[in-house]
Amino acid sequence: MALIVQKYGGTSVATPERIKRVAERIVRAKKEGNQVVVVVSAMGDTTDHLIDLAQKIAAQPDEREMDMLVATGEQASSALMAIAIHTLGEPAISLTGAQVEILTDEIHTKARIVKIGADRIRKELKEGKIVIVAGFQGITREQDITTLGRGGSDTTAVALAAVLAASSCEIYTDVDGVFTADPRIVPEARKLSRIAYEEMLEMASLGAKVLHPRSVEFAKKYGVLIHVRSSFNDQEGTIVTEEDKDMEDILVTGVTHDENQAKVTIVDIPDQPGMAAKIFSTLASANINVDMITQSSSVTETNDISFTVEENSLGKSMALAEQLAKDLHAWGVTSDRDIAKISVVGLGMRSHAGVAARMFETLGAEGINIQMISTSEIKISIIIERAQTAQAVKAIHQAFELGG
Amino acid sequence: MALIVQKYGGTSVATPERIKRVAERIVRAKKEGNQVVVVVSAMGDTTDHLIDLAQKIAAQPDEREMDMLVATGEQASSALMAIAIHTLGEPAISLTGAQVEILTDEIHTKARIVKIGADRIRKELKEGKIVIVAGFQGITREQDITTLGRGGSDTTAVALAAVLAASSCEIYTDVDGVFTADPRIVPEARKLSRIAYEEMLEMASLGAKVLHPRSVEFAKKYGVLIHVRSSFNDQEGTIVTEEDKDMEDILVTGVTHDENQAKVTIVDIPDQPGMAAKIFSTLASANINVDMITQSSSVTETNDISFTVEENSLGKSMALAEQLAKDLHAWGVTSDRDIAKISVVGLGMRSHAGVAARMFETLGAEGINIQMISTSEIKISIIIERAQTAQAVKAIHQAFELGG
Repeated sequence: MALIVQKYGGTSVATPERIKRVAERIVRAKKEGNQVVVVVSAMGDTTDHLIDLAQKIAAQPDEREMDMLVATGEQASSALMAIAIHTLGEPAISLTGAQVEILTDEIHTKARIVKIGADRIRKELKEGKIVIVAGFQGITREQDITTLGRGGSDTTAVALAAVLAASSCEIYTDVDGVFTADPRIVPEARKLSRIAYEEMLEMASLGAKVLHPRSVEFAKKYGVLIHVRSSFNDQEGTIVTEEDKDMEDILVTGVTHDENQAKVTIVDIPDQPGMAAKIFSTLASANINVDMITQSSSVTETNDISFTVEENSLGKSMALAEQLAKDLHAWGVTSDRDIAKISVVGLGMRSHAGVAARMFETLGAEGINIQMISTSEIKISIIIERAQTAQAVKAIHQAFELGG
Repeated sequence: MALIVQKYGGTSVATPERIKRVAERIVRAKKEGNQVVVVVSAMGDTTDHLIDLAQKIAAQPDEREMDMLVATGEQASSALMAIAIHTLGEPAISLTGAQVEILTDEIHTKARIVKIGADRIRKELKEGKIVIVAGFQGITREQDITTLGRGGSDTTAVALAAVLAASSCEIYTDVDGVFTADPRIVPEARKLSRIAYEEMLEMASLGAKVLHPRSVEFAKKYGVLIHVRSSFNDQEGTIVTEEDKDMEDILVTGVTHDENQAKVTIVDIPDQPGMAAKIFSTLASANINVDMITQSSSVTETNDISFTVEENSLGKSMALAEQLAKDLHAWGVTSDRDIAKISVVGLGMRSHAGVAARMFETLGAEGINIQMISTSEIKISIIIERAQTAQAVKAIHQAFELGG
C-alpha cells in the first residue's frame, strides 16, 4: 500500500462547499488503495483576517503571540476537513502541529522544522484513518506554537512526505501545474510535465508562486517527489524531481516575472572601501531582503549603488537609505516602484553559452531597456520598466521557443 | 503578593476595542500588586460562527473534531489579549489548555477536568508575566483537544483559582452581579452583595445566566471565592461564598425565570407499573435533559404524564414521545412551547415554612394559573403560561420584599 501526502491551499478550502469537494478527492485517493495524509492551509483569507485583528490592537504585535493567533486558522480547517470526510463514510482525524510533534526552532513567524515525531500519524494510519494535519505550524521544545512563514503549509507537506517516506507529495493549487511562463500573460505557455528541483527553486524564488522555495529546498534535500496539480480538475500536473539527461538538454525551462519589486539608488557615494558593506549590513539588520545589487563603475570619485527590495518594504528601505546617504556623505537617494524582474531559468545554461546574449538581443529588438542584470549558474534576471513586463515575457518566451 | 484569577466572557472581548479596554483593567490589577491569571472566552459570536461552518458540512459533526474546531476561538482571543497587554508595557503570555496541562476525560464537547498541571503558569508568573489562559478547553492523556461544555470558561477560571490557591476568582460579565430578579423585568431588583454556593447553584440552574452551574459546583467543592462583576464599570459585584448566619436568616434570596422551556404531555397512559420508567429511560438514552415531571393522580384506568425539556429539544422529544405513546398504547401526545418556569430560591426555606403558600397565594391573586410544581430543599419552581412571566416575577419579588 502506497502512502501519499496531499496538500490543499487556502483557495481550495475557502468555503464549506470547496472543503466537501476536496474531501471527495481525498477519499478517492484512499479508495484507490493508498494511505493518505493531508495537509491543509487556513480557509481563504482567514489568516489575513486574524492578522488584521491583531494590528487593530498593536502596530507591532509580539511574534510568539502572532503564531498562537494565526495557527488557529489551519487548526480549524483541518477539523472541518475531517468532518467533511466523515460525511463520506471514511474514518479521518485532524491533528495540530503539536499533536504531530512537528518540532521547530524558536524563531517565531518563520520557524524551521528541527524534527518530526510522526508516531501519532503512523498510529492513526495503522487504524485505517485518513490523517489531516494543520499546515504551517509547529511547536518548540517548550510547547510554544510556531509558524513556518510564507508557504509554510507546502513545507509541512514535503517534510511529512520525507519523514513518512511517502511515494509522492501532491501539492494541490488553483493552477494546473508549473508553466513555461504565466499563462495569463503568455497564452501559448506550456505546462511542464517535469522540472528539476534546482530549476523549480529558481523559478519559485523568481516569482512563480506555485510552490514556496523552502519547500522545494526541503524536497531536494530529502528526495521527495512533488506533484503540483490543480484541485479543480483531474489533469496531471508537474512533477518536481531530480534532474535527468532529458532536462539538461533543454536550454531554457521557463520565463518568470516578479512585479513585487522596487529599486532604491544611493547616488554619489564617495569611492572609499567599506561603503557597500555599511549599506547592506544596515539593511540586513533591519531584516530587509535585498535581491539584486548593482554598482556603477566609477570614473569619477563617486559611485551609485542600486538595489531592489520587495515593494512592501520600500518605505522602510528608503528611510534607512536616506540616513545612510547622510552618514556616508552621498548626494542622496532615489527610488523607483515602476520596475519588474524578468528571469529565464534552465539547467541547460550550465553547458550552453549564448542564453544571455539571445535574451538581451530579444529585448533590444523590442526596444526594452535593461536597468539591472544578475546571473547565476542556471538563471539570468534583469530589471525593466514594469509597464513592459508582458511584452518582455512574451518576446523571451517566443525567442526560446517555449510554446506548446 | 496576592494571586487573582479573572475571567472575561465573550461580550467583554467581542472587538479589538473591548480587548484593549479589558487589558487596561488587567494591567491595573497587576499594578495594584497582584499576580494575575486571566481566562478568556472566544470573541463575541466566534464559536457560533465556527459551529455554523461545521453544520454547513455535516448535520452531526464528530465531537472530537468539533472540539478541535471551536477551541480555536479561545486560543485566538487569548493571543489577542496578550498582544493588547504588551501595548501597555506589561509582559504577558497566552497559553492554550494543552500548554497549561488542563487534563480532562475523553467526553468531547462536555469534558470534565481531571487534573491541572499549572507548572507552566507558575513559571510564567514567577517571571513577572500576566498569564492569559484560553478558556473552555482542555486536553486528554492522548493529547486530543477537549472542550468543557457551556459555561466552560467559568469552570476553567474556578479550577485554576483552586489549583493556584488564588485569593479570589473574578468573573467579569456584562451585568453588575447577581440580582434578586432579572432587572430588565423587575426594575427595583436589588444586586446581592453576597450569596451562598448552594443558592447560586440553584439560581444558575434555574435560569440566572450569570454563572454556569458546574463552575459553582467546582467553587463550592474547593472553597473558591467567586466575585461576579461587570467588565464595563468598577462597581463591586456579588461574592459567591460559603453560607453564613446572615444568609440563613433570609427567607428568599431571589426569583428566577426560564423561558427556554417546553412541555410535553403523554395522554391516557394505561395505569400499569413501569410506564414512567420506560418513558424517562428512553428520553435519557437520547440525551434529552428532562427537567420537571408531573403525573396526574389516576381515578380512571389511565394517567397523563407531563414533563418539561429545553425548548430546542422539543422536536426530538416529541418524536420520541409519539413513538412511546404508540408502544405504551396511550391516547397520544400534546405539547406546549408557551410556558415559563418561575422559581424562588433561598437557604431560609430549610427552616421556615410557608414560602410555597405565599408564592401560590401571590400568583392566585394575580389570576395566574400554575401548571406544574417542583420543589427542593432550597427552591420552589412552577410552570406558568409564558405571557405571564413578567407579571409573575414582579408579583413574587414584591411579595417577598426583595426590592432595594
